[in-house]
Amino acid sequence: VRLREAGEGEFLRRVREAAGRPGGSVLVGIGDDTAVLQGQGREERLLLKCDATVEGQHFRREWLTEAEIGARAVRRALSDIAAMGGRPAAILLTLLVSPDEDLEAATAIAAGAAAAGTEFGAPLAGGETVGTEGPLALDVVVAGFAPAGRELRRSGARPGEALLVSGALGASAAGLACLRCGLSAPAAHRAIARSKRPEPRLALGRMLRESGAVRAAIDLSDGLLRDAGHLADESGVRIEIDEARLPLSPDCREVAEALGASPLHWALAGGEDYELLFTADAESVPALIAQADREVGLSLTRIGAVTQGRGVFVARPDGGARTPTAEGWDQFTHDQG
Amino acid sequence: VRLREAGEGEFLRRVREAAGRPGGSVLVGIGDDTAVLQGQGREERLLLKCDATVEGQHFRREWLTEAEIGARAVRRALSDIAAMGGRPAAILLTLLVSPDEDLEAATAIAAGAAAAGTEFGAPLAGGETVGTEGPLALDVVVAGFAPAGRELRRSGARPGEALLVSGALGASAAGLACLRCGLSAPAAHRAIARSKRPEPRLALGRMLRESGAVRAAIDLSDGLLRDAGHLADESGVRIEIDEARLPLSPDCREVAEALGASPLHWALAGGEDYELLFTADAESVPALIAQADREVGLSLTRIGAVTQGRGVFVARPDGGARTPTAEGWDQFTHDQG
Repeated sequence: VRLREAGEGEFLRRVREAAGRPGGSVLVGIGDDTAVLQGQGREERLLLKCDATVEGQHFRREWLTEAEIGARAVRRALSDIAAMGGRPAAILLTLLVSPDEDLEAATAIAAGAAAAGTEFGAPLAGGETVGTEGPLALDVVVAGFAPAGRELRRSGARPGEALLVSGALGASAAGLACLRCGLSAPAAHRAIARSKRPEPRLALGRMLRESGAVRAAIDLSDGLLRDAGHLADESGVRIEIDEARLPLSPDCREVAEALGASPLHWALAGGEDYELLFTADAESVPALIAQADREVGLSLTRIGAVTQGRGVFVARPDGGARTPTAEGWDQFTHDQG
Repeated sequence: VRLREAGEGEFLRRVREAAGRPGGSVLVGIGDDTAVLQGQGREERLLLKCDATVEGQHFRREWLTEAEIGARAVRRALSDIAAMGGRPAAILLTLLVSPDEDLEAATAIAAGAAAAGTEFGAPLAGGETVGTEGPLALDVVVAGFAPAGRELRRSGARPGEALLVSGALGASAAGLACLRCGLSAPAAHRAIARSKRPEPRLALGRMLRESGAVRAAIDLSDGLLRDAGHLADESGVRIEIDEARLPLSPDCREVAEALGASPLHWALAGGEDYELLFTADAESVPALIAQADREVGLSLTRIGAVTQGRGVFVARPDGGARTPTAEGWDQFTHDQG
């Protein structure tokens, strides 16, 4: 069976099986936004994550400057630390690059990565460079810390909780569509900027962790439906999303109208919004919304609920429903480049 | 300027410049075997390293089983933790793999990596899988711990110290030559096994750190000359190697004779021996040699000295000398596949 037929999920299930239950210093292994390690000091835990982007698959050279390529790779990886409520501490960068690549260009990629890391308190602390005849690829490792036992885990959702999302959805996918078809308009430019420069929600992640009302979170990289599916799977719950409540980005709506596309599809399955999807005690929702607006300048929207059961369920405004488990980003079956 | 003309060293110098002096939690950044981070607990420090291998560049599919590909990538990365005197705690694996790859084969690679990590106390704790049309590539992240302030740094060598190496040299390069030309003999089989299955010297690294007599070490991945050059550069010293004292592997000698090759060249520039090269107080050398033999079953050989100055200097048995700075493995100018 080829990976493109089996799909990423089946492969990861097998990898997880092969890895077995982690022990020793590893408190959380495969299946969450980052790994969680116990250091000798008992108060703080180490978060570890790697995130890879490949030319043609995740970006095109003609769409981004070298500095943007490096910065984007780092910002994506930092988003996973945000989803754990952590504080980033350092990045490593592995660069797979052709020996025919220009020295200045390769340096600009690394410098862009270093600058993005420094901006968020995570200096470039090492890495690896390997010559390859394949496409340009960046693998960013990010290490961070979080107080022991209070990480925002994918497995923390419980029936009865509310489901919330930060910011607005669909702009990144809309920007990608604009890049593909060359659409140029103010909304297109804003959407493209969003696609090029993800915003890791680190301040929000820390705020949510410190609130004590939130125990489960994930960042939206694969698309809302698929990422909600990860939350549901890891927590052993059912996640119900109210389609009418989704905070669609105005730029996403405008671009979709210009292109005759579906803004809802971009919001549900487009991916790369890098907002946080999380669950919270229902009674704490108004206070969280007010606090996020005041302290981190971000809107939070209640978009659904956690119930008993399995999988993801989307309630449509017309009273219909769908259980769209196969939508969203899959490394092996999609081609985003 | 293309990378293949500029060389890896020049590129890394520029990356280091772009990264700037690390701050915050990062105590040691680019330039050592691993990054060193300070956690909240003050007694222990976090070591972080990533190590990438690419099909055609670092291995060929026809030479290794899938499990061997995964295990080899992990064992290489663990060697860097050994070179810091650390204890490995976890690995992450990024796999860049074609969507046309067989699911069982891809799983076997990850399972081989997981098993190798577990063998050395570092469970597979996460990772990333990305579809690519390029060659198969593995990037292994390894995290470990070491007592604060006692890591074996590349920058710790001081004039007056002795230079030592563990084990025997050249077998891995000899094994690679056997794979390339199809040589089959007992010595060839042993050399090939060594090439396929690097041995991270973790117990030795910890012993050296605990001895208090050793403050500088590096693992031999790029070749003795090049790695000695890294030690010399980072410490700001000159390293003098006595060619006649080099512990050439008997298998390396035998294969070289059969192939009409130079065993000395393999020992000096072949790379991938994954032995430890380190410096020690001269008066502690006999005790270290005895202890390594007794406690970790490894021979140590005094092969030279640290003096004032710069660079690497090799004294030849005929009284001549060479300063072979450009030899060894370079990611952009060599092709090992």
